[in-house]
Amino acid sequence: MKPSRKVVSFGEVMMRLSPPDHERFTQAKQFEINYGGSEANVAVSLAHLGISAEHVTRFPENDFGKAAASFLQSYGVDTSHVIFGDDRLGVYFIEHGAGHRSSKVIYDRFDSAFAKISPSMFNWEEILKGADWFHWCGITPAISQGASDACYEAIRMARKLDIRISADINYRRNLWNYGKKAIDIMPKLIAESNVVIGGLIDFENCIGIQSTNFEDACKKVQKTFSNVQKIANTLRESVSTSHQKMSAELWSDNTLLRSKNYELTNIIDRVGSGDAFMAGLIYGFNSALNDKGTLEFATAASVLKHTIPGDVNCATVQEINSLVNGENIGKLLR
Amino acid sequence: MKPSRKVVSFGEVMMRLSPPDHERFTQAKQFEINYGGSEANVAVSLAHLGISAEHVTRFPENDFGKAAASFLQSYGVDTSHVIFGDDRLGVYFIEHGAGHRSSKVIYDRFDSAFAKISPSMFNWEEILKGADWFHWCGITPAISQGASDACYEAIRMARKLDIRISADINYRRNLWNYGKKAIDIMPKLIAESNVVIGGLIDFENCIGIQSTNFEDACKKVQKTFSNVQKIANTLRESVSTSHQKMSAELWSDNTLLRSKNYELTNIIDRVGSGDAFMAGLIYGFNSALNDKGTLEFATAASVLKHTIPGDVNCATVQEINSLVNGENIGKLLR
Amino acid sequence: MKPSRKVVSFGEVMMRLSPPDHERFTQAKQFEINYGGSEANVAVSLAHLGISAEHVTRFPENDFGKAAASFLQSYGVDTSHVIFGDDRLGVYFIEHGAGHRSSKVIYDRFDSAFAKISPSMFNWEEILKGADWFHWCGITPAISQGASDACYEAIRMARKLDIRISADINYRRNLWNYGKKAIDIMPKLIAESNVVIGGLIDFENCIGIQSTNFEDACKKVQKTFSNVQKIANTLRESVSTSHQKMSAELWSDNTLLRSKNYELTNIIDRVGSGDAFMAGLIYGFNSALNDKGTLEFATAASVLKHTIPGDVNCATVQEINSLVNGENIGKLLR
Amino acid sequence: MKPSRKVVSFGEVMMRLSPPDHERFTQAKQFEINYGGSEANVAVSLAHLGISAEHVTRFPENDFGKAAASFLQSYGVDTSHVIFGDDRLGVYFIEHGAGHRSSKVIYDRFDSAFAKISPSMFNWEEILKGADWFHWCGITPAISQGASDACYEAIRMARKLDIRISADINYRRNLWNYGKKAIDIMPKLIAESNVVIGGLIDFENCIGIQSTNFEDACKKVQKTFSNVQKIANTLRESVSTSHQKMSAELWSDNTLLRSKNYELTNIIDRVGSGDAFMAGLIYGFNSALNDKGTLEFATAASVLKHTIPGDVNCATVQEINSLVNGENIGKLLR
Amino acid sequence: MKPSRKVVSFGEVMMRLSPPDHERFTQAKQFEINYGGSEANVAVSLAHLGISAEHVTRFPENDFGKAAASFLQSYGVDTSHVIFGDDRLGVYFIEHGAGHRSSKVIYDRFDSAFAKISPSMFNWEEILKGADWFHWCGITPAISQGASDACYEAIRMARKLDIRISADINYRRNLWNYGKKAIDIMPKLIAESNVVIGGLIDFENCIGIQSTNFEDACKKVQKTFSNVQKIANTLRESVSTSHQKMSAELWSDNTLLRSKNYELTNIIDRVGSGDAFMAGLIYGFNSALNDKGTLEFATAASVLKHTIPGDVNCATVQEINSLVNGENIGKLLR
Amino acid sequence: MKPSRKVVSFGEVMMRLSPPDHERFTQAKQFEINYGGSEANVAVSLAHLGISAEHVTRFPENDFGKAAASFLQSYGVDTSHVIFGDDRLGVYFIEHGAGHRSSKVIYDRFDSAFAKISPSMFNWEEILKGADWFHWCGITPAISQGASDACYEAIRMARKLDIRISADINYRRNLWNYGKKAIDIMPKLIAESNVVIGGLIDFENCIGIQSTNFEDACKKVQKTFSNVQKIANTLRESVSTSHQKMSAELWSDNTLLRSKNYELTNIIDRVGSGDAFMAGLIYGFNSALNDKGTLEFATAASVLKHTIPGDVNCATVQEINSLVNGENIGKLLR
Repeated sequence: MKPSRKVVSFGEVMMRLSPPDHERFTQAKQFEINYGGSEANVAVSLAHLGISAEHVTRFPENDFGKAAASFLQSYGVDTSHVIFGDDRLGVYFIEHGAGHRSSKVIYDRFDSAFAKISPSMFNWEEILKGADWFHWCGITPAISQGASDACYEAIRMARKLDIRISADINYRRNLWNYGKKAIDIMPKLIAESNVVIGGLIDFENCIGIQSTNFEDACKKVQKTFSNVQKIANTLRESVSTSHQKMSAELWSDNTLLRSKNYELTNIIDRVGSGDAFMAGLIYGFNSALNDKGTLEFATAASVLKHTIPGDVNCATVQEINSLVNGENIGKLLR
Repeated sequence: MKPSRKVVSFGEVMMRLSPPDHERFTQAKQFEINYGGSEANVAVSLAHLGISAEHVTRFPENDFGKAAASFLQSYGVDTSHVIFGDDRLGVYFIEHGAGHRSSKVIYDRFDSAFAKISPSMFNWEEILKGADWFHWCGITPAISQGASDACYEAIRMARKLDIRISADINYRRNLWNYGKKAIDIMPKLIAESNVVIGGLIDFENCIGIQSTNFEDACKKVQKTFSNVQKIANTLRESVSTSHQKMSAELWSDNTLLRSKNYELTNIIDRVGSGDAFMAGLIYGFNSALNDKGTLEFATAASVLKHTIPGDVNCATVQEINSLVNGENIGKLLR
Repeated sequence: MKPSRKVVSFGEVMMRLSPPDHERFTQAKQFEINYGGSEANVAVSLAHLGISAEHVTRFPENDFGKAAASFLQSYGVDTSHVIFGDDRLGVYFIEHGAGHRSSKVIYDRFDSAFAKISPSMFNWEEILKGADWFHWCGITPAISQGASDACYEAIRMARKLDIRISADINYRRNLWNYGKKAIDIMPKLIAESNVVIGGLIDFENCIGIQSTNFEDACKKVQKTFSNVQKIANTLRESVSTSHQKMSAELWSDNTLLRSKNYELTNIIDRVGSGDAFMAGLIYGFNSALNDKGTLEFATAASVLKHTIPGDVNCATVQEINSLVNGENIGKLLR
Repeated sequence: MKPSRKVVSFGEVMMRLSPPDHERFTQAKQFEINYGGSEANVAVSLAHLGISAEHVTRFPENDFGKAAASFLQSYGVDTSHVIFGDDRLGVYFIEHGAGHRSSKVIYDRFDSAFAKISPSMFNWEEILKGADWFHWCGITPAISQGASDACYEAIRMARKLDIRISADINYRRNLWNYGKKAIDIMPKLIAESNVVIGGLIDFENCIGIQSTNFEDACKKVQKTFSNVQKIANTLRESVSTSHQKMSAELWSDNTLLRSKNYELTNIIDRVGSGDAFMAGLIYGFNSALNDKGTLEFATAASVLKHTIPGDVNCATVQEINSLVNGENIGKLLR
Repeated sequence: MKPSRKVVSFGEVMMRLSPPDHERFTQAKQFEINYGGSEANVAVSLAHLGISAEHVTRFPENDFGKAAASFLQSYGVDTSHVIFGDDRLGVYFIEHGAGHRSSKVIYDRFDSAFAKISPSMFNWEEILKGADWFHWCGITPAISQGASDACYEAIRMARKLDIRISADINYRRNLWNYGKKAIDIMPKLIAESNVVIGGLIDFENCIGIQSTNFEDACKKVQKTFSNVQKIANTLRESVSTSHQKMSAELWSDNTLLRSKNYELTNIIDRVGSGDAFMAGLIYGFNSALNDKGTLEFATAASVLKHTIPGDVNCATVQEINSLVNGENIGKLLR
Repeated sequence: MKPSRKVVSFGEVMMRLSPPDHERFTQAKQFEINYGGSEANVAVSLAHLGISAEHVTRFPENDFGKAAASFLQSYGVDTSHVIFGDDRLGVYFIEHGAGHRSSKVIYDRFDSAFAKISPSMFNWEEILKGADWFHWCGITPAISQGASDACYEAIRMARKLDIRISADINYRRNLWNYGKKAIDIMPKLIAESNVVIGGLIDFENCIGIQSTNFEDACKKVQKTFSNVQKIANTLRESVSTSHQKMSAELWSDNTLLRSKNYELTNIIDRVGSGDAFMAGLIYGFNSALNDKGTLEFATAASVLKHTIPGDVNCATVQEINSLVNGENIGKLLR
């Protein structure tokens, strides 16, 4: 693939509110404020990796819309094509578990400024001018008909402009409430995508491909969706909320690669670790790394995300490479 | 009036999120969490004044519904008839101004569990059994048709059971979005109420009574609404956000009484000061205080609320009486 | 056993002050405030499990007495029979250790409002009306003669009213300073109890039963104390302050049952884990669970407590059952 | 007077716990921790003014005793003769009021390690060696017979060693619970003192001198207590908790001097302002300042204390002199 | 003047560390982190006012350089021409005073990455392309020879490109340590500037113009520096650190205008109020406002800054206009 | 060795600023403030172990110099010979990693008040009077020529006064920027020292002794440096930032001793663990402990440091002995 000079991502950004110090929702007297969303998290990660990133979304025309935009800008993500309108920024609340207590998310995202978008609000031809990578995820078409249509428009324009497309299928059973099912919509979107993150459940629910084996599933996916060149997935084994084991696999050129397996203890915040992985893949596919190198880079990026509070991965290329190479583990870097 | 053994209030309770230390919304990294709502604030104030108080509302069936109920219970407010359903707790965000910067509220309350109530969800006969005072405010009928209808049912049952009724007209131009105007609905609700808080704008918009003079307006109100025995109002002169002057007036027995005027500097939190005043009136009308005593008590209660963070007035009868009597001003009480 | 409609617990509640972020006492510039006490913790746990709970105690007649009552009320624990008097709320300070540093408690509880109780302050017949379970623990008779006498009165009345009685022996060598020894008083209290938590040290010091084997000890206990039907105990193996292994055993119907063994890493707060276990037992014995199910439920409840800051267990029946069934471990619940 | 090379103070030090951000006790989830006590506050102030200061007290033999000692040491106060024993550090809780809400103190100081002192615990001859000023206050003899006796021993030894003695009468009606009245004990202690702070209420209750006029009272005091050379007092007019007016007066050489009157707005913390005044007097009487200069210095020191959180005055000589001279008011000092 | 499409500012940005809650430096256990610098503050203010703003500076090549850039970006300030090198970000510490205690600044800014700049590091022709306003202040030439030279290069290029130039003279006696005096350098820089902020002390020290009267001084300035069209100054009367009176004056077209005088109580943070004023002037001179309107706008902007924590003014055009018009004072804006 | 009545340490103390809650530098909005420096950390540890400790350094003549001195004094470390001058306190920033993310230190210590010392500023004969142990570390001679010379003067005087000398070689590649290399200076300093901490890298870079084996290296060291009697070293195996294994070795009397190996999970703060080890050695060599006992004591001290926030080890002799004896592991000490 050719090097990516600019990645454009598209999707909802929410305010994230979380009680400090492992408090439960019912105990909390304060929330810590962050902002995040699957695709925007990818954009922020890429910006940390030195790749030019722009995020497109719609924010409410109020102080929280401004604050969310400010959050993206602070990380150097371009927000020039963000549009403002309506009055709700979606919110999600996260309670950080620990040990045998699971973490818990409560969404309050319906009727957000983003959910109310329509395709005509975005001029994708202009937005995508100069970009060479477009990233979307399966949450967007699940939110509303308008979001689904706008996402499809973006994908079609990207394809038309010969821009590479990555997709994180990210099937969410609790969304898809506006009358369509994932299976009605996702196939045509995946059909245009080149790099896809997904697992067996995603394949079954979103593109109707059933299998009990990832490699087999990948073969089937590629048979049906010939544009899809790379399929990746993260694997997680949970000992507890604070202690997990993680690796990833990448199917590419008819070959299944498996990354190193990491043992994660003292997890700080796992939210966004899939987005960190996606950003790692995009980085790898746009640099001198081969498939194996890309997979290890993306996995290490995701591993580091577990140690960083918030949704976004503030790890640098150097830090990720150190982890890939097993250097500096547990060191006090002076 | 006979002494109140139990006051029942009815209305929405929201989560309140505010940046600490006078930060602006766009600067905030944390929110302080409180819960409040005009009528519930009255109930909590009454509980602090030693009056048995129950609040009726509908909370979402999630952790934030539990947390809001827990907040009311913590102050000894009875929540036995609170119902749970749906999934949204309304939120309001408050940015605390200072000096020449005004405080600012952003509401995110639409489609809340309370907004979705219907009259059949509440058995008012059972709820009001044993109560001798019912309190409502003009926000409830402004929220949704269901809330309006439920409020009317409550008022009618209270009247039927010969329970005294207080109303805070509290006209909010930004609500009343469900197809009805205040003037379509409020008159029949006010018609059944005995103690009313309101000012010239409330009278004009909610019951169609125009006047440029409070006393005159009160006369007109009573002519039309013969059940209304007491009409009160707070008067505020703003030097700045941190410095205001406050007094109140009470029209009763065809006489207009005016309270002492207080100079408030170093205001901590003025939200809920009207509710503190309402609770002071209810307390006064149910104790040995005469009209003048009641007015001074309610005004002093409201003054003290300005010094207490959050929506609710944690002042005791003794503290309020000290202020009425000008005792202990600025003392270090040991 | 018949289902419990209402549990009444009795015992001291203290203010708990702890430095944040694993600071040592000598480093601390702030304390986090909680309230707790062994029996009240059981009541709060039960309220979270959906069982009606009332706690009886004596609080000082000041703001900290109010705050402690408010804390119990916030969790829906009935405080109608709490009495107020005197001026001290006992305090305990806890320094949270980590790794190889033990946690440390400093008590400052002498001469508290509770320690100064006398039996005549409580009308147990009225208090216990409508209850079907009474819970006490061995700390109460260790505090003062008055507390001991009041506890015995409560137990006798519970027995008279045919209310089931649970006891957590909880031997504390540092208490028992008022002239009596545990062995002088505990036997007559245990004699009336039906469900008992205790280990070998408790049996030896409080009821004079010596054994090196829990099963054997249980047999001896039952021989002497024929009302005791269930004896339970938690087992803890400490790798470090942050890492422990925990299981529990229940002797019932002449059979010793042993729970699953849990490996606890990243412990947040172990205080109150025994009380969470007790509440789990009471819940189990009052529901459709059999002995094995009750033991596993109580153990899982206790395991979850280790992940929750403060003294009380805010875990729900659903969360505990998930852990019992090994579901959702380490998941991000959306 | 000759310059003071070293001041020794004697009295109880307590832990001070206060809710942040003007929260009420019943709202607080955190306490800020400080340490303080009238005489120790004087010592810390003096250390800030560059005068060698030692504080003598008794702390409990636990981490809070250590922490309190550490607090004094951190300010350079010598603690070499502090003794350790027993297990309670007295605590006082302070709720910071604002505007029309008074601040509130709850003491929990009985049976402290200091209250249990006896004279034999201190070797005053050794302690006072090298000192040329001794400071005590009327709280100490009010605490217990042992504290009273120890204080008297200290004063007698100071007199014997020809050390100057200052006393802050500081009458506290709520203390003096051990069977003695102030009037039984204070006269003999005051009789040996040279510099005294007190007002009409102090004089009446502690040394039986009645007057409605400070100057007249001073004359009477000196007539009876011939060692007393200087009598000072602070005058406070309270507009509100946040806004007060303050000045001071000094009777010396048969003349009454009155300081500048300061208008204090936005008061941060007035606790310890009397101790800051005392320290200012001691500083002045031991430097080149004349009576008028000393009075203004002490008053300005006290004024500055109102702007500093905690019990102790961290103001420097330079800062106090700037205020005396009306320099730098409201400046941003770079 | 023609409307400004883009303003470029140039100058050092420092990390600002301040103890919370009015603590003194010697009491602090935490610092709040902000970033600021006179010219960057102007840029951020302008961005809030809807004017395209770019800031040019040099940051160290480390995480704090990144964080400072991130801070500017978060407010939408363009940082495309910021350069990175060396390893020190200047720091300034601010202790917030209150009442009669002055605020205090300690600088630790020597040898910063900015101080080590040389003119060749910046390609001003490229940087200023598309800009129509350039802003600098007198701190930059005071820092180092390199900073002085680079500033002069920027000014000369701006002049060459016919870009308007504003200057805040901002004389700092403690800087100018590298061998030059202000009077050696400032005149040639001021000579090219069009809008100047300065007072009598600035004029005397930086451009050798002495006068005891602002209007007279302005006349002299313009006589010598014919490019200077507007001269403005803020006037401050300090009652205390928390209470000040503020107005401003503008000399333009040979006329001296004076703004409304504001009484500021409960000041939150006055740092950056001069920069807010400068930004207000630039906004006014580039909009439909006349001189009087510009002066009032700039003064109100500065007044609002006093209510906002941090160095930068987050006030909007609408908020500033409300204050100019005396609207919404002390209101709770819903 | 004879018991140490007083230990004097010498070296730089810096302000340490760290983001809370595992935040990255670029995310931080607050810093927690501590003070520390290798030699001062040893002094504070010793004070906690009951050994009289004095620290000698140079602080800037400003509030941060005062605050740093106050920090040492708070722990009972004597600061009588600290000198004040110049205006910079060195700062180091630490970002606490977790799991696979390393911790990171950024130094900003050049041109500090300490770096600018010269030997003539210290009268070592007077300073060391009464001391019987002197401690220095290899950071001091690496800072500046003046610091190096002053350190050598101190060591020579200690030797002259027959005071025992300990040295922590502590080679820092990033220092040694003033024109000298470690190998130019360290040998003559080590030559006078009796107890040395160092590893193979330290030996190679600082005293030119190469070996791949610690025991062999020790033999070579002693051959060259005959005053060196004890050589110790800590051994660390890093699983991750939060999980490490640690032991230590001591070469003494021609014998190599190895301590117990500890598995450290949930590490709170490893900074200063080497200094805690050094303090443990000094304690052991000055008490009744033999070499093995000393090694185990020092290792356990270091292990405990990992659980304590900040640079200094607040562990007591009793706590360390408990860990050595495997007592109280994971207990809740009441």
